[in-house]
Amino acid sequence: MKAHYDMLIVGGGVIGLSIAYQLSKLGSSVAVFERNRLGCEASSAAAGILGAQAEIDEEGPLLDLAIQSRSMFPSIVEELKEKTNIDVELIKEGLLKVATTEEEAQVLQRKASCHQRWDENVKWLEAKEAQAIEKGLADNIHGAISIPGDGQLAPEKLTQAFAQGALYHHTKIYEYCNVYSLITEKNKVKGIHTSSGTFYGGAVILTTGSWGKELLPNADHLEVFPVKGECVSVRSDKNLLKKTIFLDEGFYLVPKAGGRIVIGATKISHDYTKTVSAKAIQALLEKATRLLPSLSEAEFEKAWAGLRPQTNDGWPYLGPHPTVEGLHMAFGHYRNGILLSAVTGKIIAEAVCESKQNHSFFDSFHFMRTMEGIR
Amino acid sequence: MKAHYDMLIVGGGVIGLSIAYQLSKLGSSVAVFERNRLGCEASSAAAGILGAQAEIDEEGPLLDLAIQSRSMFPSIVEELKEKTNIDVELIKEGLLKVATTEEEAQVLQRKASCHQRWDENVKWLEAKEAQAIEKGLADNIHGAISIPGDGQLAPEKLTQAFAQGALYHHTKIYEYCNVYSLITEKNKVKGIHTSSGTFYGGAVILTTGSWGKELLPNADHLEVFPVKGECVSVRSDKNLLKKTIFLDEGFYLVPKAGGRIVIGATKISHDYTKTVSAKAIQALLEKATRLLPSLSEAEFEKAWAGLRPQTNDGWPYLGPHPTVEGLHMAFGHYRNGILLSAVTGKIIAEAVCESKQNHSFFDSFHFMRTMEGIR
Amino acid sequence: MKAHYDMLIVGGGVIGLSIAYQLSKLGSSVAVFERNRLGCEASSAAAGILGAQAEIDEEGPLLDLAIQSRSMFPSIVEELKEKTNIDVELIKEGLLKVATTEEEAQVLQRKASCHQRWDENVKWLEAKEAQAIEKGLADNIHGAISIPGDGQLAPEKLTQAFAQGALYHHTKIYEYCNVYSLITEKNKVKGIHTSSGTFYGGAVILTTGSWGKELLPNADHLEVFPVKGECVSVRSDKNLLKKTIFLDEGFYLVPKAGGRIVIGATKISHDYTKTVSAKAIQALLEKATRLLPSLSEAEFEKAWAGLRPQTNDGWPYLGPHPTVEGLHMAFGHYRNGILLSAVTGKIIAEAVCESKQNHSFFDSFHFMRTMEGIR
Amino acid sequence: MKAHYDMLIVGGGVIGLSIAYQLSKLGSSVAVFERNRLGCEASSAAAGILGAQAEIDEEGPLLDLAIQSRSMFPSIVEELKEKTNIDVELIKEGLLKVATTEEEAQVLQRKASCHQRWDENVKWLEAKEAQAIEKGLADNIHGAISIPGDGQLAPEKLTQAFAQGALYHHTKIYEYCNVYSLITEKNKVKGIHTSSGTFYGGAVILTTGSWGKELLPNADHLEVFPVKGECVSVRSDKNLLKKTIFLDEGFYLVPKAGGRIVIGATKISHDYTKTVSAKAIQALLEKATRLLPSLSEAEFEKAWAGLRPQTNDGWPYLGPHPTVEGLHMAFGHYRNGILLSAVTGKIIAEAVCESKQNHSFFDSFHFMRTMEGIR
Repeated sequence: MKAHYDMLIVGGGVIGLSIAYQLSKLGSSVAVFERNRLGCEASSAAAGILGAQAEIDEEGPLLDLAIQSRSMFPSIVEELKEKTNIDVELIKEGLLKVATTEEEAQVLQRKASCHQRWDENVKWLEAKEAQAIEKGLADNIHGAISIPGDGQLAPEKLTQAFAQGALYHHTKIYEYCNVYSLITEKNKVKGIHTSSGTFYGGAVILTTGSWGKELLPNADHLEVFPVKGECVSVRSDKNLLKKTIFLDEGFYLVPKAGGRIVIGATKISHDYTKTVSAKAIQALLEKATRLLPSLSEAEFEKAWAGLRPQTNDGWPYLGPHPTVEGLHMAFGHYRNGILLSAVTGKIIAEAVCESKQNHSFFDSFHFMRTMEGIR
Repeated sequence: MKAHYDMLIVGGGVIGLSIAYQLSKLGSSVAVFERNRLGCEASSAAAGILGAQAEIDEEGPLLDLAIQSRSMFPSIVEELKEKTNIDVELIKEGLLKVATTEEEAQVLQRKASCHQRWDENVKWLEAKEAQAIEKGLADNIHGAISIPGDGQLAPEKLTQAFAQGALYHHTKIYEYCNVYSLITEKNKVKGIHTSSGTFYGGAVILTTGSWGKELLPNADHLEVFPVKGECVSVRSDKNLLKKTIFLDEGFYLVPKAGGRIVIGATKISHDYTKTVSAKAIQALLEKATRLLPSLSEAEFEKAWAGLRPQTNDGWPYLGPHPTVEGLHMAFGHYRNGILLSAVTGKIIAEAVCESKQNHSFFDSFHFMRTMEGIR
Repeated sequence: MKAHYDMLIVGGGVIGLSIAYQLSKLGSSVAVFERNRLGCEASSAAAGILGAQAEIDEEGPLLDLAIQSRSMFPSIVEELKEKTNIDVELIKEGLLKVATTEEEAQVLQRKASCHQRWDENVKWLEAKEAQAIEKGLADNIHGAISIPGDGQLAPEKLTQAFAQGALYHHTKIYEYCNVYSLITEKNKVKGIHTSSGTFYGGAVILTTGSWGKELLPNADHLEVFPVKGECVSVRSDKNLLKKTIFLDEGFYLVPKAGGRIVIGATKISHDYTKTVSAKAIQALLEKATRLLPSLSEAEFEKAWAGLRPQTNDGWPYLGPHPTVEGLHMAFGHYRNGILLSAVTGKIIAEAVCESKQNHSFFDSFHFMRTMEGIR
Repeated sequence: MKAHYDMLIVGGGVIGLSIAYQLSKLGSSVAVFERNRLGCEASSAAAGILGAQAEIDEEGPLLDLAIQSRSMFPSIVEELKEKTNIDVELIKEGLLKVATTEEEAQVLQRKASCHQRWDENVKWLEAKEAQAIEKGLADNIHGAISIPGDGQLAPEKLTQAFAQGALYHHTKIYEYCNVYSLITEKNKVKGIHTSSGTFYGGAVILTTGSWGKELLPNADHLEVFPVKGECVSVRSDKNLLKKTIFLDEGFYLVPKAGGRIVIGATKISHDYTKTVSAKAIQALLEKATRLLPSLSEAEFEKAWAGLRPQTNDGWPYLGPHPTVEGLHMAFGHYRNGILLSAVTGKIIAEAVCESKQNHSFFDSFHFMRTMEGIR
């Protein structure tokens, strides 16, 4: 068994696999270590909204990253399809961010003006206009922001496509493999101890989502924790919905191909279980049918939960570890893991590969901030 | 392939298999024809309540049958376990029929007095008394009838046990076999045409549930139709419920082993689909958590639907066909198929086997009535 | 409930739905009646090989149809994707028809010459050449025909795409709906009796696969019967196979996206069950690993069976019923249902729509022949 | 959240839950920590043979334990059924240990004599005698040891019953909870750090199966590792088998209720994956049909794998840690986890509860030996 790679990636979710894909494409020898099966956590539980503007309202580096990542999808999806034959079901029908009260309408109208600065196609729709576009929307909505540029895809397919793309470039994948500890020497990471043996590498990249803190050294004051999100899906042949519907509180209806609609999600912090409660299903269906009354006749399909990795300040940890050489972090993407996967793969791969690391990005992004929890 | 049996049973649900078991135990050569897999329709969708008094309030032959059937279960379950090693998970913790309004309380109190005539253990409980027994019941209930004799079991296991018991006695089972038509000669049934060939037999017994009318001759005015029932189940380790909870409208919570609770059921007449609608799940969970508030924290497990075979007057068709010799009927048990399966197996088997048919039972039961739809 | 449509299609498999798609696209009002769920029989059990030349060796109208149908897929797949967002995972990597003995090699070499007449890209490969293309092929093969034009797709996705495409053009779909009988009047079909009521239509099209004979009038001497095919699938990250591998006896290995390989199929005539036997799995895996030894390390995924509708002479029934006006047939496609679905949809739709039916096609195809079983 | 319990058990498999049941029954406050779902590893993958004499041939404390444990099942099963309503499907039809060659026959005959010393019902059967008892056995077997006292049960039900029994006695169960590290103070264990917070307890019991080494202090030289076992199951209505069939190499056929037969198992050391390879299925079915030819017609049901925790010398680690006070071990049961679960629960519970630990058992058992790997 080979025991040395250029790059060791801990975590086989969409983030780890996107990085693996980019690194191996750049010519590195890469190994990915996943303790269960690839994509079995948040990556396959997501709804797959590429909601750059839906999810992130504040200007700043996170929105910049999101918009950059969203713009990468059409070409990366094409590239992955060519190499892997996997279609990730990218649908670009746009998104409506709906106001359900007059107060929300006022907030959203202000946000719409703001969003228009970086996307001229964003516009505010009065209730009647929104209903003219989505006929099933309830009578009592109070308008909506139309974001035609937002799209969505099948997250489990994207994850699988990154994995197959990485394999195409000779990445080695270890499933059912527990990583026990880092091997460090004089503040430099040398490898990892795993249930499949010891591996050495020039760099170790932690893409461990809600479990991001487990292997991280000197990180007592850093916080990464799961926010459980419960979802349900329904199906109908009645063409109930065309665009993604999004509420500011983080509730959404996402119309997939074949008449499926994904309804999500609850938010339960610090809960590592993946069970779905009776009350979550009640609440999700209640909200969904209030927004889209005809959905009550749709066929229930299934319910599931995923753990979204959240951090103290809501920003992901991206970049080199401040004190341990060769150690990199890419976790804490919260609800934006699918959206940010494309750009994360690219910037981390580039940063890890450059002999002189491009600190400018990480500096401008949030280097000073996120690292404060880490000595 | 053998093409002649003493008895041909059309329908591999709990009714057909209970009859097959009894007939083959009596020494007949029996074949069962099922178009899909055994027990794949209502038999496996039921909640398994043996609710003789919960379901049937009026005195009369149907209640007599139900009480007789309920009393047969302890021994038949024992007998099947011995022959098949299958435990049908019979639980005898009793049932509470709960009043949710003062009006319901008055109705139920009258029913309680009535039930006491044939079961001295039935009694009326005030709200506080009911809550003392089932601690999780909501504060705003208005009392309950306690029926300690009612029990419940796992319907798919019962169906499987009858099937294995029938096999034990050399019954032959044809799955995935469509029965196209009866072969009759001078008003006497001789056999059946099926997708597995032609079979001859001394008697043909139709146990075809919601599809009871399909093969029945001269039955233009008879009505058998499905009443779809949607169910959900949840799970909890918190010991939420001990007894079956039943509302007069036909809503119930059934606590199974291992912390599972089955919640049912909706009633949608003339619907042959087996999909579960979003609104059904909402309605079931809403009612369930109103009765048992702690259930809202339970883990959602799954949702399903089954088609209960209903008739015009709510009574099953049991007994010989009025004009076609050798043809017997046992369908239309509506919500009581599991409960009545034991007695149905026994009386039909006995009736079919006796050279002089015991018309007394069928006469007293409902012979005059049910047959009016059949020429 | 609407009770009249231009066209009533009985059977919701890939054939019925392809016809529904084409007919509704041409402007007809169409209803599809499926007794279970759409695509739940052979359509979802197929391996999805578009093996025009792999499956059909003899020149004649069937091969013409197959080649025509294969050529339609790229555009129809595009068209369906646009309307339904469903990608049917069309992969065009070609096919190798492998010889496992010297005798087979001689037979296949002759076939190769023959195939070259209508496809200049077909060529014969010696064993070494074949292994150079597919590195995993066993040492002891005796050459292969290379058919670069053959492709494959995901059959359950194609079926779903036809269904969604038909819905897009306002087809009405009735699932869980049993069709009991045709309504005919003076040798003209007027409608159908179903478990969802009576429906009238200008034409009735039977696309009922292995059950094709059930509703067909005057068809005592016609034969349609199931040939059960058992399949297994495996998965590997090792890039085991690129092209479809096909043996003349009808055994195949089909590499799907994501490292899946579908291995099929057994042939059991007149068997309506959908169970998979222990010996089938043994036999399939044994053949597969003999052809592709590295497959023995692949991960077992699942096993399933489907019923392919076969006819006496191996030709499908396509076209108008010879004596009942307004009644059309499209069943009996055996192993070529997916491949022929595109052309079947088109020619049947055109034939049904034309007031003067285009007898020329049906005449030249096999009108005189197939109809001999029908009075 | 409560943060202190008398006993903290790490691992929610059959061993941990059996100990939890016994400890809580004795009155301790107990918490169980399981990183995934209860019983999701080896406990639910086992075949459930209670093969005291089938599995363990050598006299000594391990066989004594096994025989003691086997004798405990009838009463513990009864006790659990009463408290939890769960039937664990205990079947006591005996076991045949079959010789497939003349050499094996000679080995087994010697073993039979040996076994008779502690079980007078054990006897050697010539081939004809064995076939008279199990009619389906192949002609070419060379005799068998009959062990009428061995039985089998449903391991996932047993695990669930122990869990529900523990809950009945107020055990607290934490699922989806990672235990990160032990809290020790002056060579005494005080508690554990987990993803659900910090917990303190008077004793910590590690029942962590194949992962037994992860949390164990001072255990560099101890070895616990998984031996993956792949299984398949088939089903038949033909009553193919009554007794468990066992080969000395560790291959078995276990007839469950309802016509199911479990076929196992391969042995792959140091493999943490739970995938099932194509070659494993081939090999298992090939062996199974060689022993029981009629099985080739049985219906394939499913395939799965589990990780059996093996140790250097094949003996489980049972008892107190040699140098860390309050820390107890119960892992490494290899193929005998189900069989030994009953006695393990009892002896560990008693040992942990006694203020003066009963060193006599652990001494005589294997205290001196197993601990040599631990400082």
